[in-house]
Amino acid sequence: MSNGDVFLGEVIGTAILILFGAGVVAAVLLNYSKAKDSGWVVIAFGWGFGVLAGAYTAAPLSGGHLNPAVTIGIAVDTGDWDQVPVYIAGQMVGAMLGAVLCWLVYYAQFQANADDEIAQPTLGIFSTGPAIRNPVANLVTEIIATVGLVLPILAFGLTKGLGESGTAVLVVSFLVVGIGLSLGGPTGYAINPARDLGPRIVHTLLPIPNKGTSDWGYAWIPVVGPLIGGALSGLIFKAAF
Amino acid sequence: MSNGDVFLGEVIGTAILILFGAGVVAAVLLNYSKAKDSGWVVIAFGWGFGVLAGAYTAAPLSGGHLNPAVTIGIAVDTGDWDQVPVYIAGQMVGAMLGAVLCWLVYYAQFQANADDEIAQPTLGIFSTGPAIRNPVANLVTEIIATVGLVLPILAFGLTKGLGESGTAVLVVSFLVVGIGLSLGGPTGYAINPARDLGPRIVHTLLPIPNKGTSDWGYAWIPVVGPLIGGALSGLIFKAAF
Amino acid sequence: MSNGDVFLGEVIGTAILILFGAGVVAAVLLNYSKAKDSGWVVIAFGWGFGVLAGAYTAAPLSGGHLNPAVTIGIAVDTGDWDQVPVYIAGQMVGAMLGAVLCWLVYYAQFQANADDEIAQPTLGIFSTGPAIRNPVANLVTEIIATVGLVLPILAFGLTKGLGESGTAVLVVSFLVVGIGLSLGGPTGYAINPARDLGPRIVHTLLPIPNKGTSDWGYAWIPVVGPLIGGALSGLIFKAAF
Amino acid sequence: MSNGDVFLGEVIGTAILILFGAGVVAAVLLNYSKAKDSGWVVIAFGWGFGVLAGAYTAAPLSGGHLNPAVTIGIAVDTGDWDQVPVYIAGQMVGAMLGAVLCWLVYYAQFQANADDEIAQPTLGIFSTGPAIRNPVANLVTEIIATVGLVLPILAFGLTKGLGESGTAVLVVSFLVVGIGLSLGGPTGYAINPARDLGPRIVHTLLPIPNKGTSDWGYAWIPVVGPLIGGALSGLIFKAAF
Repeated sequence: MSNGDVFLGEVIGTAILILFGAGVVAAVLLNYSKAKDSGWVVIAFGWGFGVLAGAYTAAPLSGGHLNPAVTIGIAVDTGDWDQVPVYIAGQMVGAMLGAVLCWLVYYAQFQANADDEIAQPTLGIFSTGPAIRNPVANLVTEIIATVGLVLPILAFGLTKGLGESGTAVLVVSFLVVGIGLSLGGPTGYAINPARDLGPRIVHTLLPIPNKGTSDWGYAWIPVVGPLIGGALSGLIFKAAF
Repeated sequence: MSNGDVFLGEVIGTAILILFGAGVVAAVLLNYSKAKDSGWVVIAFGWGFGVLAGAYTAAPLSGGHLNPAVTIGIAVDTGDWDQVPVYIAGQMVGAMLGAVLCWLVYYAQFQANADDEIAQPTLGIFSTGPAIRNPVANLVTEIIATVGLVLPILAFGLTKGLGESGTAVLVVSFLVVGIGLSLGGPTGYAINPARDLGPRIVHTLLPIPNKGTSDWGYAWIPVVGPLIGGALSGLIFKAAF
Repeated sequence: MSNGDVFLGEVIGTAILILFGAGVVAAVLLNYSKAKDSGWVVIAFGWGFGVLAGAYTAAPLSGGHLNPAVTIGIAVDTGDWDQVPVYIAGQMVGAMLGAVLCWLVYYAQFQANADDEIAQPTLGIFSTGPAIRNPVANLVTEIIATVGLVLPILAFGLTKGLGESGTAVLVVSFLVVGIGLSLGGPTGYAINPARDLGPRIVHTLLPIPNKGTSDWGYAWIPVVGPLIGGALSGLIFKAAF
Repeated sequence: MSNGDVFLGEVIGTAILILFGAGVVAAVLLNYSKAKDSGWVVIAFGWGFGVLAGAYTAAPLSGGHLNPAVTIGIAVDTGDWDQVPVYIAGQMVGAMLGAVLCWLVYYAQFQANADDEIAQPTLGIFSTGPAIRNPVANLVTEIIATVGLVLPILAFGLTKGLGESGTAVLVVSFLVVGIGLSLGGPTGYAINPARDLGPRIVHTLLPIPNKGTSDWGYAWIPVVGPLIGGALSGLIFKAAF
C-alpha cells in the first residue's frame, strides 16, 4: 500500500473511530442527550462498533490499524518498520479530526454545559483518566489491557477463513467491546496512544464552556502503556506462534 | 434488477425496518409494555436488528438500501441515477406501511394512552426530534451521523469476502447499533429521510388518543440532513477510495 | 433427512431453545437468582442465543426449525408437507423437555418460591401472557411478529453465502433478539406455538410452590397467531420472491 | 498438534479467558471501578468475549479448548485421550495466570478494599458460588449448563462452513453469553473446572485486603459438575449425531 493510501486510510478510519468513541461517552455523560446515563454497556459497545465502522472503512486503504499499539505490534512481529511513521501520523491526525467531529455532533449539548448548575467535566468524553490515581498501577493496567487487544489481533491472522470471509474486523470489534467491559474499570481503557493523545490536544484547544482540566499530568500513561503493550504483544507472538 | 423488484423489495424491507424500529421505541415508551423503560441500549439494538431483518429480506430483490441517503450515496459514487426514484418511492411507501404495522402491534397500548393521567406524547415512536432545538446544530448532527452510516457502507463493498460470506448486512446492522449508541443523543438519529418522513405522515393521520404534535416544523431537518450526508459520503468515497 | 433424524434433531434443538429461553426468564424473575431484575435486554438476548444454541445443534439432523410456524411457512412455500407432522411432534416433545430442564436448573429457586412473602407467579417463565388482555389485538400482535420472524428466515435462504459461511443461524439469532426487543412488549412474543404450548403443559403438571395460574384461557392465541403468521409468511414469500 | 503447542496454546488462551472473565466481575463488583454496578448483561458479555479473545488466540496452537469439560467431551466422542492431560495441565496453569493478571489490572481497586467500611468479599471475582447452597441442586445446574455448552460446540463441527469462514469461535462466544444470561442465575455458571479451580487457588494465595473466604467446601461442585456435563455431552453427541 502506498504511503498516501496508508495515511488517508488511517486518517479517515481513526476519525470515524473517535467520532463514535468520543460520541458514545458524550451521549452518556452530557445533559440533554437522549442516551444520558445509559451506562457502561452502552459505552463499551459504542467504542467497539466505532472500531467496526472505522476499521472496515480504512481497511481497503491501509489495513485499518487505527492504533499505534497495533502498528508497533505488527512491526515488532514482522520486522518491517518502514511505514510505521506514516501510520502513526495518520492515526494522530484522524484522532484529532474525530474529536472535532464529535464536538460538532454534540455542539448544542456542549454549549448547554455553560449552565453552571449542571455543568460536567468534559475531559472524559475526549480522553481517559484513572478511577484511582496510581501511576504504576495505571501503567500496568494499560499494558496488560493492550496485550489483551494486540495479541489476539495478531493471532486472528492465523485463523483460517477469518480474512477470506471478511469477518476479521467484526471479531476485532467484539474483542474491543470485551476489553471495555472487562478491563476498562481502572483507567477507562485507552489501549491506543492516538485515541487518547489526539483528543486531549483537541480538548485543550476547543472553546467548551466549563470544560475543566485536560489533565496533562496523566497524559503520558495512556501513551506509554499502550506502546509497551503493543511491543510486548509482538514479542510474545513472535516467540509463541 | 427490474423496477418492479426494486420497488417491491424496498417496500417490504423498509416496512420491516420501521416495524422493528418504531416498535422498539413503542416497547420502551408506552405504558403496559413489557419492555417499558428498558433504556437506550434496547432502542439502539432494536433499530440495528430492524436493519438486519429488513435489509436481508429486501436484498435478493433490491439490494436492500431501505434509505434514500444510501441510495443517493451510491448514485453519487456510480453516477447511475436511473432507479433512484423507484428506490425512494419504495422506501417511502414501506416506511408508511411499517409505521401502520407498528401501530397494529401496539394497538392496545396506543388505545390505553387515552388515560389522561399517564398518557405520553407518541411522536417519538414514529419520528425523531431534537433534545435541544437548534436547527443548524441539529442539521450538522444529522449530516455527520449519516456520513458515519453511508461512508462505511460504501467501503464495505471493498472488503474482500464480506459479500461472498453473506455477512455484509450483519455488519451494517451492528454499524447502525453503533450510530444509535454514539451519535443518537442530540437528535435521535434519523439518518434516513424515509424513516422519518413516512412515519410522521402516518402519525399525523392515525387516530391515536393523546397523540400530541407531529412537529412538522422540525420535519425538514431529518430529510435534508441525511440527504446531504448521503451525497457527501458518495463524494468522499469517490475521491478517497 | 430421515424421519428419525428430523424428530431427534427437533427434540434436542427445541429442548435447548426452551432451556435457554425459559431459563433467562427464570434468571430475571426468580428470587435468589444472580441475574434477578437484569431487565428486558437480558431476556431478549437470552432467547436469541437460545435459538443460536438450539438451531446450530439441530441443524445437522433436521435443519433446525424448532418452531411449527417456521415449518409451516416452509411447507406453504415449497408445497412439501410430508414431514410437517414429524417436525411439529419433535418440537412439542422438545419444548416440554426443555421446560423440565429449566425447572431442574432453577430447582432451588423454584423451591424457594414457597416463601409466601416473596413468592412470584411463575407462568411467565414457561409461557407468554398479554400486558393488556385483548384477544383480537393480542392475536394481531402475534401474527405480525411471526411474519417478522418467518418472512426474513425464508428470505435468508436467498442471500448468497449465508449458508456457505455457516452464519445463517447466527443471523437468525440476532433476528430473534430484535423481535424480542421491538415486538415483544404487548404479548411477550410467543411467535412459536410449541414454545408456548409445551411449557404451559409442563407448568400445569410440575409441583412448583405458589406457581399461580397456567392461564389456559389465553393459550390458544400464542398457538393460532404464530400458525397464521407462519402460513402468511409462506404466502408472501411465494408471491413476492 | 505437538504437546508443546497444545500446552502453550491452552496456557495463553485460558489466561486471556480468565483475565477477561475475572476482569469483568472485578469491573462490576469493586469500588472505584468505572463499570461498578453495571449489571448482569455486562458480566455475561464480558465472559463471552473473553472466550472470543482467548479461543481465537489459542486456536492456531491447540484448537482453543480452554476448558477441561470441552476437552473431555471431545475425547469421549473421538475416543482419543492421548493429549487430554496436556490440555488440562495447560488450562489449569493458564487459569491461574489469568487470575493473577486480573489482580494486577485491578491492583489499585483491590488495595482500596482495605477500607473496612466499603470492603466487599472478593471470591466472586475469582470463582463461582451458589445463590442458594444446595449441593445436589447446584451440581445438577452445573451439569445441565455444561451440556448446554459442550453439546452445541460438538455439533458446531458438523455445521457446513462455520470452520471455513473462521466464525466458529465467534458463535461459541455468543453461546457462552447465552449460557451466562440464561443458566447463570443459580450458581454463577462455572461450566469449566479450570476456570473455577485455578482462580480459587490464586484467591487463596493472593494478599488481598478483606478478601473473605475462598469457600473450599463448595469447590468440588464446579469441578465435578462440568466434568460430568462434558462427558455426558460426548455420549449424547456420539449416540444422536
